[in-house]
Parts: sequence; C-alpha cells; structure tokens
Amino acid sequence: METTNASRFPLVVIIGGGFGGLEVANALADEPVEVLMLDKHNYHTFQPLLYQVATGSLEAGSIAFSLRKNFDSQKNFRFRVAEVTKVNVDKNTMDTTIGEIAYDYLVLATGSTTNFFGNKDVEHHAMPMKSVPEALDLRYMILQNLEEAVLKQTKEEREPYLSFVLVGAGPTGVELAGALAELRKHILTKDYPELKKEEMKVYLVDFLPKVLGSMSDQASQAAKDFLTKMGVEVLLNVKVENYDGDTIKFEGGKSIRTRNVIWSAGVMGNVPEGLNKDIIVRGNRIRTDNICRVEGYPNIFAIGDVAAMITSDTPKGHPGVAQVAIQMGKATGKNILRIIKGEATLPFKYFDKGSLATIGRNKAVADLGKIRFQGFFAWLIWMFVHLISLLGFRNKVIVFINWIGSYVSNNGGSRLIIRRFVKEAVPQENEPLPKTD
Amino acid sequence: METTNASRFPLVVIIGGGFGGLEVANALADEPVEVLMLDKHNYHTFQPLLYQVATGSLEAGSIAFSLRKNFDSQKNFRFRVAEVTKVNVDKNTMDTTIGEIAYDYLVLATGSTTNFFGNKDVEHHAMPMKSVPEALDLRYMILQNLEEAVLKQTKEEREPYLSFVLVGAGPTGVELAGALAELRKHILTKDYPELKKEEMKVYLVDFLPKVLGSMSDQASQAAKDFLTKMGVEVLLNVKVENYDGDTIKFEGGKSIRTRNVIWSAGVMGNVPEGLNKDIIVRGNRIRTDNICRVEGYPNIFAIGDVAAMITSDTPKGHPGVAQVAIQMGKATGKNILRIIKGEATLPFKYFDKGSLATIGRNKAVADLGKIRFQGFFAWLIWMFVHLISLLGFRNKVIVFINWIGSYVSNNGGSRLIIRRFVKEAVPQENEPLPKTD
Repeated sequence: METTNASRFPLVVIIGGGFGGLEVANALADEPVEVLMLDKHNYHTFQPLLYQVATGSLEAGSIAFSLRKNFDSQKNFRFRVAEVTKVNVDKNTMDTTIGEIAYDYLVLATGSTTNFFGNKDVEHHAMPMKSVPEALDLRYMILQNLEEAVLKQTKEEREPYLSFVLVGAGPTGVELAGALAELRKHILTKDYPELKKEEMKVYLVDFLPKVLGSMSDQASQAAKDFLTKMGVEVLLNVKVENYDGDTIKFEGGKSIRTRNVIWSAGVMGNVPEGLNKDIIVRGNRIRTDNICRVEGYPNIFAIGDVAAMITSDTPKGHPGVAQVAIQMGKATGKNILRIIKGEATLPFKYFDKGSLATIGRNKAVADLGKIRFQGFFAWLIWMFVHLISLLGFRNKVIVFINWIGSYVSNNGGSRLIIRRFVKEAVPQENEPLPKTD
Repeated sequence: METTNASRFPLVVIIGGGFGGLEVANALADEPVEVLMLDKHNYHTFQPLLYQVATGSLEAGSIAFSLRKNFDSQKNFRFRVAEVTKVNVDKNTMDTTIGEIAYDYLVLATGSTTNFFGNKDVEHHAMPMKSVPEALDLRYMILQNLEEAVLKQTKEEREPYLSFVLVGAGPTGVELAGALAELRKHILTKDYPELKKEEMKVYLVDFLPKVLGSMSDQASQAAKDFLTKMGVEVLLNVKVENYDGDTIKFEGGKSIRTRNVIWSAGVMGNVPEGLNKDIIVRGNRIRTDNICRVEGYPNIFAIGDVAAMITSDTPKGHPGVAQVAIQMGKATGKNILRIIKGEATLPFKYFDKGSLATIGRNKAVADLGKIRFQGFFAWLIWMFVHLISLLGFRNKVIVFINWIGSYVSNNGGSRLIIRRFVKEAVPQENEPLPKTD
C-alpha cells in the first residue's frame, strides 16, 4: 500500500484522466491538497475526434495527450497507470492493479463504455469506438476489409466487405457515416482502383425516429438531409435483432450482409465494485447529490458520464457530453477545497453551451441555445471549437495542418494498418488467442 | 491464382515496399509493363527515423506512408497486402498468403530482419527495432518500465527498470543511446518527478573496438566522445553471452541488471523459400550478378539488404544502407525495361554519397567522401537529408514541426502507451497468449 496518507495535506484521488478528471486536477493546482490521478492509459483521449482516427484522417498521437506531460508543472500532482477494481468505502482505500491505495477524497471520473444491451452476439462481432485502441482496431478492420474486397472476384463476394453499418445515429454514428461517405467519394477508387464507388454502401441505423436525437428537430433534419445527399442510407425506427459477423438482422425481417458493423447505440457508466448497489441507476450511472457527491458517501464524488445527478431540475441526470464532465470537474474540484476549508459548498449548475455535430466537408449543424444554423458556418465553428479544446499546442498545430491538407487535397490522412486486427475468436478452452502482429 | 498473365504487358512483381522496391516501381511508371507490389504492411517505413518512434519523439504515422496512396496516380501499378512464402521458380509463380501469383519478372526487395545469431534466449527477451510495430512495442516497454520504476520502493528494485542496454553500436544503437540520454536529461524528472536522473543508466555495447564501425575513425571517435559527454557508458570489445530478461551477461564475467535490452547488433536477409540454397551467402543474402540478377535465375532480381552483389570490386557485396537499395532499385527497374526491349543491360555501379549519423541535439557526424565533419553543421545536414527523404509532404511538415517543437521546448513528443506491451510468454502448449489491450 502506498504511504500517501503520511502527507500532511488531504489526498484527493481522481480515477480517470478524461475531460472531467482533468478539470478536477486543474482546480486543485497550488492548493493545500495532494492529488493522485489514476488511469488505465497514460494519456487523455480527445474522444470527439476518435472517429477521424478510425477513418485514418488523423493519427492517434494527434488526439491523445500524455497525462504526465500535461501536469508536469503541477507540484501537488502525481499520476499512476492503474485500474481500480474495488472501492473499500469502509476504510477509504481502493484495490487497484498496482496495489491498495488510500484516499481522503475520491473522485470517480471513470466515464462510460459501449453498451450492447446484453446482446452477446452483437458485442462479440460489432466494433465499439470509445477508446484509442478501439478506434485503431476499427481503422485496421475497415482497411483490411477493403484489401479483402480487392481480392474477391464477384460483386456478391465483395458485398459484405464493402457494406458499412453504423448502429446509433448520435454524433459518433453521424460523423462516422459522413466520414465513410467522403472516403467513398474522394479516396476509394484512388487507393483501390480495382473497386467501384457504387459497390460501397454506408448505412446509418437507429431505433429512434430521428438522427442526432438530442439536438433540435431543425439540426436533426439538416443532418439527415446532408447524409442522404452524400449517399448514406439512413434507416430510422429500425431495431437491430442480431449480428453474426456476416449478416446484421433487423426486427421486421430486413437484413444487410456486412463485415463492418460499428456500434455506437448506447453507453453505460464504468462503475467500480464496492459501492451500494441501490445508488446505481439507469445506464449504470452513480446517483449523486447536487454537488456531485455520491449518495451515502460523504467523501466520494462522481462526475461526467458515470454520474447521474438526479434532482428536481434534472430528473434524468445530465447528458453524457464533454461539457457536463468539464463543468462538473471544475465545480467538484472547487467544492472539495471548500469542504476542506470548512466553507459552504455551491450546488452544481450546468450551463448548456449548445451542441455541434459535423457531417463532413462544409457540413455541420449547430444548436447554440435559440440560435440554430447548419452548413459551412456551423462547420467552421465545429472545427474551431474542437481545435482549441485539444490538449497540447503541438496537437493543435498538427490537427490543423492535417485538416488544411485534407481540405485542399481531398485525400488527407494516410490509412495505415500498423497492426493487423484479428477479431478475437469466440473463447474456447485452451485455445490460444490469435496473434495480432 | 490471379489472372495477371492475361495482360498483354509483361508483369513485374516487386516483393517489398522499402527504399529499393519503391524505386523499381517508380522506374517502371508509364512503361509498357504491369507492376504488382506485395508487402506484408500497407505502408512504406522510413527506417532511419524508427528510433524516434521508439523514444516517443515522433508518431508512427509521421514516418510511415501508405503504399497505395504513394502510387495512386501510377496507372500500371497495383498493390496487395501479402507475404510471400515460396517462389516456384520452375513455373514463375509464388505461393503467398493471398494465393498463388504469377510473374514474368520478379524483384526481391524483401529487406532484412534482426539477426540474433542463433541465441534463442536473447531473441526471446531482447527487443528488435526493424519495423513500426517493433518500434512501438519498444516504446511501450520503455514507458511501462518507467511507470514500473515509479512503483518500486528501493534503488535496487528500480535498477533493472531504469537500465537501458543497447547492443550494437551502429547508427541505430548510437541514435537510440543519444535519444535515451536526452530523455534522461530533459524529460525523465519532468514526466516522473518520483525518479532521479542519476538512477537511469544508458549503456552502448559492441563486440567491435569502435562505434559506427562502418564510418571513418574520425566520425567514430567523435560519436564516442559525444555519447560519453552525454553520460552514455560505451562498452567496446564486449561480447554478449546471454540475457534472461533480467540480467545481461557479457563474456569475461561482467553483467548488468536490466529489463531493457535493445538488439541492433546484426541483420539477415529475408529470403523466401524456393531458391537454390547455394546462392545464399553470409548474412542470409542472395548472390546476384552485376545487374542485381539472382544467380541462375534470368528473370529474378534481388536488391537492397537482401542482395549480395559479389564482384571483384565488391567482394563482400554492398553495405546494408538505404542508398544502396535506392540506387539498386532505380538501376534494376531500368535494366528490366532494357531486357524487355531487347537492349543491353548496364552494370550496377554504387555511388557512395557518404554517411551521416546523429547522436543528439546539435550533435551528428558526417563522412561525405574525403570531407569529414562533426557537430552542429553535420546535425543540420542530417535533419535536412532525412526530411527531404521522407515520403509525403504532410509527413515532412509534421516531422519538421515536431523537431522544431522538440528543439525549442526540450520536451517534444508525447510518449503514449497506446497498447500495453506484453512480452509473449515462452510458448507452452495450449497456453493462451496474454491480451495486449
């Protein structure tokens, strides 16, 4: 067990270096506390641009940033690569992959993971895209399937390799659909002269009646129109029944032959063991009071995707977006300081700055309060907001150059298969996993 | 089997998209031939900068470039991701991972791989660095060992994690030693405030009496002086006896406790099955005549690291450097065209442009014919030559920005552990391989 309790300042442990965790640590800089951040990766992931890693427009290193480097001038900050398996609430410690660690205050900023709603077949065969390794695997799979299509002799044989089904028409599904449609338009026949544009199909599927369900009807309609014009088949009110790795079946009988199913239809919170089960609500989120404090645990906080602050104002909690995590992180850092100093805490109030989603070149939708607009100007704002939000000056410059290059050439990115992706075989006893290199 | 023989132009198959293979394909552009390139990766690797990927200064995508994209405007060029397992010389076909493929002319540009000289223990425990995945694994191992060192309580426990032994004092070993010494000087205590500079050790080991054995004595001595001043322990005339993953033992009794052994002490050619064994010479290279034609096979050529053009002028063949591969590639492409057109071939003549090696910031050595110099100016030339040689304008710009950033900040790169590296367990029957994610 680390001897961190020996320090004379209270120790705040933050689990997770996402948008929320970063802000807690920032808020605690130069304050009379010790900060320890744990994350299973040694980097922060800028999730809004993961889809560009998946489609090969950006390299992973451009949207990920070292957590150690980010905090290298913050004296009271320490970092460990570790996963937390259990919180021992009675003794204020956690079981982790690097041993037992004590805390005085604990912030759960563990985010969310893909929710397959219990369908094991879909979970096994469809691709999630919530982390950098997942986005890279997705890229390798897409490119390998294009390589495979080149080797097939007939249209029928090529069909499953050239059909892309995006399940979930939230921002991730919409952005991926747009990016794949642009890949088909500008890159497919340049890189693969053997293939034909009309044989590549992109489907966007949702069981809800609209795309971008959390945005205004105006944004939703515009996004759908953009996608349709780009040749994406938008299938709404359609529920996935099953996927066996070769054919995806929908309720009502329709099916599509495809080896490329990307699942962004739901998320669930990453909750460590050890908390009272009664406070875990829908979406595997942890119920908190109005200062992000986990119900029943005075020194444990939950923020961002894993938190459900259920109050009369927010009966369903807050949406799982970066802005909520960022604002909760800032507020929680400050409230922990107030608690330590014996001051009154301030209730969290979410300020909705609005929503943006991009569909492709010159095409985005923006809901900024009552102001709603779509097209080129929304797209410029989308780029600007994402660029300034990226961690690291070098990353900002490199992403900017990549975007300029892509805009000018219509052939950005380099689409490298660095490591061959091999879908893990359905586990069988004693069967060695396939090598991926 | 692909029906490539049906084309009316002769089919030239190039195995390998390295420096040599690229030039053959370039030389055949717009000529009355069909070109098919095979490579196990879908990208060209700029090997001279692999060490910067290993130390986290550059991302893999900055030094690798899509082969399909590179040739997307060359009409007679096709590409397949494939490995060749055997050449069927009697029927002019090859067995490959994507089926049997016929050729009219075959160019073996398969390069070389790490030579562990038959020591299975060393091969199992030491890290090679000849490909992008290997460089990434090396980076992850180095960073994971630094993370591990942070967790250890005593100097003795930290020692193997903080000791770096580079075996082989050629350009790769020298460049890695310099980069690790700079990481220690500028980055170690910034990223890992828990660690001490003086506990990190860098050793460069060679069984020869000098570093950079292929360069002039003047360059060799200067490189050694640079390294020593940077705190690298240079151990010459020292032969490795064994390495068990924890301690490397040298002949004569000396040993070093280390979990970081990087092996660049030798290479051997990648020779497919099927050729007459008599023409495989030292270093597993294929003997060719003076037009790079493999002895005994009038339509098979070998170029670059895998070729040994043994003539009275070059009794040991040519050195295994990029310039030889590039020049052989150009010459071979042209000679194949001459053969097809019934013209006389021209014997290959290597023009030695000189050698460059960098040790670190402002420190490089240059042997340009009789002109030899070391230091800042050599370093500028090294950077310039490497920048202009990189494939792709975007890669040039991004590497340049990274270098400027590193020079200004002394804290370039981002040192991400994208995928946890797990050294494959010594294979045991039915034991599943560890998951790497």
